[in-house]
Amino acid sequence: MKTFRVGVLGATGTVGQQFIHRLRNHPWFRVTALAASERSAGKRYSEIVRWRIAQGIPEDVGALTVQPLEADLDCDFCFSAMDSSVAGPAEVEFARAGYPVISNSSNHRMDADVPLLVPEVNPEHCALVANQRKNHNYTSGFIATNPNCSAAGLVVALKPIHEAFGIEALNVVTMQALSGAGYPGVASLDSTDNVIPYIGGEEEKLESEPRKILGRLNDGAISPAEIRISAQCHRVPVIDGHMEAVSLKLHNKVSPADISAVLREFRGEPQRLKLPSAPAQPIEVRAEPDRPQTRLDRDAGNGMAVVVGRVRPCHVLDIRMVLLSHNLGRGAAGAAILNAELLAEAGYITARK
Amino acid sequence: MKTFRVGVLGATGTVGQQFIHRLRNHPWFRVTALAASERSAGKRYSEIVRWRIAQGIPEDVGALTVQPLEADLDCDFCFSAMDSSVAGPAEVEFARAGYPVISNSSNHRMDADVPLLVPEVNPEHCALVANQRKNHNYTSGFIATNPNCSAAGLVVALKPIHEAFGIEALNVVTMQALSGAGYPGVASLDSTDNVIPYIGGEEEKLESEPRKILGRLNDGAISPAEIRISAQCHRVPVIDGHMEAVSLKLHNKVSPADISAVLREFRGEPQRLKLPSAPAQPIEVRAEPDRPQTRLDRDAGNGMAVVVGRVRPCHVLDIRMVLLSHNLGRGAAGAAILNAELLAEAGYITARK
Amino acid sequence: MKTFRVGVLGATGTVGQQFIHRLRNHPWFRVTALAASERSAGKRYSEIVRWRIAQGIPEDVGALTVQPLEADLDCDFCFSAMDSSVAGPAEVEFARAGYPVISNSSNHRMDADVPLLVPEVNPEHCALVANQRKNHNYTSGFIATNPNCSAAGLVVALKPIHEAFGIEALNVVTMQALSGAGYPGVASLDSTDNVIPYIGGEEEKLESEPRKILGRLNDGAISPAEIRISAQCHRVPVIDGHMEAVSLKLHNKVSPADISAVLREFRGEPQRLKLPSAPAQPIEVRAEPDRPQTRLDRDAGNGMAVVVGRVRPCHVLDIRMVLLSHNLGRGAAGAAILNAELLAEAGYITARK
Amino acid sequence: MKTFRVGVLGATGTVGQQFIHRLRNHPWFRVTALAASERSAGKRYSEIVRWRIAQGIPEDVGALTVQPLEADLDCDFCFSAMDSSVAGPAEVEFARAGYPVISNSSNHRMDADVPLLVPEVNPEHCALVANQRKNHNYTSGFIATNPNCSAAGLVVALKPIHEAFGIEALNVVTMQALSGAGYPGVASLDSTDNVIPYIGGEEEKLESEPRKILGRLNDGAISPAEIRISAQCHRVPVIDGHMEAVSLKLHNKVSPADISAVLREFRGEPQRLKLPSAPAQPIEVRAEPDRPQTRLDRDAGNGMAVVVGRVRPCHVLDIRMVLLSHNLGRGAAGAAILNAELLAEAGYITARK
Repeated sequence: MKTFRVGVLGATGTVGQQFIHRLRNHPWFRVTALAASERSAGKRYSEIVRWRIAQGIPEDVGALTVQPLEADLDCDFCFSAMDSSVAGPAEVEFARAGYPVISNSSNHRMDADVPLLVPEVNPEHCALVANQRKNHNYTSGFIATNPNCSAAGLVVALKPIHEAFGIEALNVVTMQALSGAGYPGVASLDSTDNVIPYIGGEEEKLESEPRKILGRLNDGAISPAEIRISAQCHRVPVIDGHMEAVSLKLHNKVSPADISAVLREFRGEPQRLKLPSAPAQPIEVRAEPDRPQTRLDRDAGNGMAVVVGRVRPCHVLDIRMVLLSHNLGRGAAGAAILNAELLAEAGYITARK
Repeated sequence: MKTFRVGVLGATGTVGQQFIHRLRNHPWFRVTALAASERSAGKRYSEIVRWRIAQGIPEDVGALTVQPLEADLDCDFCFSAMDSSVAGPAEVEFARAGYPVISNSSNHRMDADVPLLVPEVNPEHCALVANQRKNHNYTSGFIATNPNCSAAGLVVALKPIHEAFGIEALNVVTMQALSGAGYPGVASLDSTDNVIPYIGGEEEKLESEPRKILGRLNDGAISPAEIRISAQCHRVPVIDGHMEAVSLKLHNKVSPADISAVLREFRGEPQRLKLPSAPAQPIEVRAEPDRPQTRLDRDAGNGMAVVVGRVRPCHVLDIRMVLLSHNLGRGAAGAAILNAELLAEAGYITARK
Repeated sequence: MKTFRVGVLGATGTVGQQFIHRLRNHPWFRVTALAASERSAGKRYSEIVRWRIAQGIPEDVGALTVQPLEADLDCDFCFSAMDSSVAGPAEVEFARAGYPVISNSSNHRMDADVPLLVPEVNPEHCALVANQRKNHNYTSGFIATNPNCSAAGLVVALKPIHEAFGIEALNVVTMQALSGAGYPGVASLDSTDNVIPYIGGEEEKLESEPRKILGRLNDGAISPAEIRISAQCHRVPVIDGHMEAVSLKLHNKVSPADISAVLREFRGEPQRLKLPSAPAQPIEVRAEPDRPQTRLDRDAGNGMAVVVGRVRPCHVLDIRMVLLSHNLGRGAAGAAILNAELLAEAGYITARK
Repeated sequence: MKTFRVGVLGATGTVGQQFIHRLRNHPWFRVTALAASERSAGKRYSEIVRWRIAQGIPEDVGALTVQPLEADLDCDFCFSAMDSSVAGPAEVEFARAGYPVISNSSNHRMDADVPLLVPEVNPEHCALVANQRKNHNYTSGFIATNPNCSAAGLVVALKPIHEAFGIEALNVVTMQALSGAGYPGVASLDSTDNVIPYIGGEEEKLESEPRKILGRLNDGAISPAEIRISAQCHRVPVIDGHMEAVSLKLHNKVSPADISAVLREFRGEPQRLKLPSAPAQPIEVRAEPDRPQTRLDRDAGNGMAVVVGRVRPCHVLDIRMVLLSHNLGRGAAGAAILNAELLAEAGYITARK
């Protein structure tokens, strides 16, 4: 039975809280260290966090003293929920000090030797860790990342389609949740009775990350998938859950029924390995015309499943559909935890003495 | 100076109320007759309407007695806001009795001899009225319609682009307001903290109506524009205002700056004729990255302007942009009033003795 | 180990669905029969229900055939979630046929011989069942009710205060959730960006039911508690959870700390009996100035705890505070299930052959 | 014909924008100077303001260069929308330099010689200006304030009742709009699907300000009205408009009809003087059971009227009712503009050379 001591970097923010929340009763991982900015360091977690999750702070975690963001934590590996303004060098420092850093931050996602990992999609990219260690003289440490919250759900749905039929191009229009912007994030005067057709940096990530994730690993380097992507991102007034309207141009022309079938039948490495956070069925396909709906379906598979609906022919490209995924589950903390489970199972994360 | 007596058919619903609201102080039109279903007929309007507009009921209209939906009203022409379950035959009856019927209902929109009219876009389609009168032996009566609320704003923005550069195909994803479903319409338990990826019949309308509106009139018949359209429609929790994310494939390749220029410079017949409801500038183009926003921009041009933003190259088709229009202004009652203004100016509507 | 077969009357509505949802994995109760209006009868539940709960329909319940609302169901007792337009005579018919009817409907709540039951507050009122059976010649059947959703949470908090210090009068202003109105219930155009200062019939219930619940049982009759109550009820745009701002006039003048102490220490019969649905602590008292909050605290104690905050002196009466309870848990289906647990434990509900 | 040049202090925030918006086309006042914090000073207003009002920035105001908050502005008097963290000494500095400062900030509201003014309620308090000038050796300058947004609407409704029947005590529970907290103000994750039972400092203001406003001026000093007030304040998810549920204890017992009559008939000095911003009827009384509603009624009287409904007997005190007022109109910028109109009409504000 594996058990690992876990540190959470950036423990006070929205995603940091999600890590702590989602690690309650985790069979392998136990939170033993918290780190955050200067302002919080030295204080008891329960005293300084503005906890925003309905279930309270796990008692043992609340009692921990928050450490500064320095690579001297009592843990086997770290989850990083640091703000991108500080995560870049800080994650490198932790990796250099020997800590595996399983990061939700965007800073190192596109680094050539950092895996941008979605366990159902590209588990073989774990192998980049070896290159990374060699390039940077890391010993036990390394950095592994998960994609942006809007890309995370998308690539899960794209994977079986790309594999079976080949995706040439895709158009995606997102309707994204408020929690994706963190806390305080979007002002209520901007969100109420409003749609904002812009999320800074989001479209660029959504147009580039899937190409890396769906790319092929050859001789230790990833050749991005040759898929043209157009993304238009919108903030809509929902708490959690990103909805995405997708149109696909395929190499092989197939029917919506063929698409639904490969989506429904898709299983990945996490399902084969029965990783603790893996949803039994990574993609749920709904037949009703009005599903998925954000509030009703975002918690499918404990927030780790992607729910697809309205698979239909497209009059401009080939196939269209909508998909929904939980931006804090599949799109952030849940994604990183699943990554850590895969990396632990594969032996990349080990107990430190 | 023209003055016409106006009847409102379906006067108690959301759009009926909007007609009455928007005709306050109209320089040409004065509401003199109201008609609604059996249940309401014979009663004073102010007593039976569940008025949902912040400004109260215009006093003189509130005092009118609601008539049954029979073609015997004291007015020169009618606006129709009847439910599509009854509008089909009822509108024909009014037309046969000599009333011009300026309708917001969907029933006759696609009839070959009924103009589906957007004054900035296809004023020449008014000429269909002559065919219609001949086909049905109408004397002074006829039916003219305006498009679905999601198509109305779209075609205004498409018109100058299509004319200048030729549109081959377009992908449109909508984020539509609650008021588009009328009252009571969408349940609050369906709208709160939720996106619904389906609006019954909406995608079909949005994929067909623009082709007729942008079509050419030859020998009294309309050849639909050869534009492939894919529409995905969503209901989002905003009161008013439909946002649409659009991607276009053009015959002539042009830059976003070219597109913005033709949008900004576009003026149509209503602007030339200075029709009372015509916005000075039918299309406003915003340069800020985060505009248009639904709540801030829906009232542009008194709800009659279309606000376009984020005009950019598309990695899959050629050009993409977002547009916003008010679904009750440009998309419903405002549209029909502008149609009536054009038809009155052109002599199709005349005062009855 | 008790096990009972349960019927749900009015199984398709919001509260009916909540019964089915909350009885998943119940240790004593298993849903074996569903009844609903003519329109639904004869069909498979999963085919006709418009299921609105994120977790899907329990598979075995979804497979049941819906019966008409006739007293011939395969079950030991019934939960009633029938609409008040039909519940009156229908509940009597089931009671007469021998079924204990544990009802959430308002029709019989104020009947002199029907217990209006909140297990933490007035478990001794169960004894009314004997009178009721005698009065109506019921054999094994009877009707027991739970209070209105806004009264349910309130009386739990009032109980220990009334017992310790005596309540003379109270002013309560509610901010109630949309789900309290059922489905479709409140129109989204009425709820969005709006407060409605009126809920039909609600204030009357909130001003009368607590007096019965807190009343004393003497010789088989209840003398209502002598408490003057003023209630002002508002609908606010939240999904679930009723917030109530309360001011109290007490017979014995005490400090906020005294009030908090009796609230915190309060335990009732369900806690003593360890009933399956009983929250360990029926009243949680928060010390933070800005709690309880509707979205964060409504699920406390699995929706069965009442969360109290801001206990302070009142400049007009004596003490003020805010309280929050889940209108579908403590205020509806959860309340009835706890009632059934108490009545089963006390022997009023027994297995039918 | 009066015309005054106006400066706006704190011009970039929510209330500063409202001043500029509401002074469009004002018959007496023209914005000629803008001042804001260091960060904004020296720049063109249109370039640095994050303008959040649907109608755009008035062109001439947008072109102004923002000045630092120093008492050297080209204007006859100033409106102050400064944050309370800086308004205290800054307003004194402007008064000392000879500028009348018509302030919406809370800092000096309770100063003994500063009028806390609501023109319909206590126009005679203008006379405090003479004392203030004497106390501080001000020449033409002085400070006059308007109440907190939740107190502003309340006192208008209390005035005719207090005058006619005498108010002994009142209990008020508010449901306040998001815009009351300024921008960015409340986080969307705190507002969506939520009620927050706390607004820092609000209850203290609502319990003290009405006593001063309704107080009597004797020998240059105000004796506060002897009214006990209990306030419980809540933030609810609406954009604009504060709803308040009120219960009153009166010296003279009267019927709801008597109360409604004095509310309806009430007119004050602004109505007598026909001040430009004065609503024709300061208090509208609605007879429908479900009005006022926030979204439908907040703009009554251009946001300057108070809308009262549900006037009924109270079972605990004597009379209860709900009232709604616009927190940015009657409760902030609109209030200060009406104050300036009264002070100009009364000769306290004069044109500087």
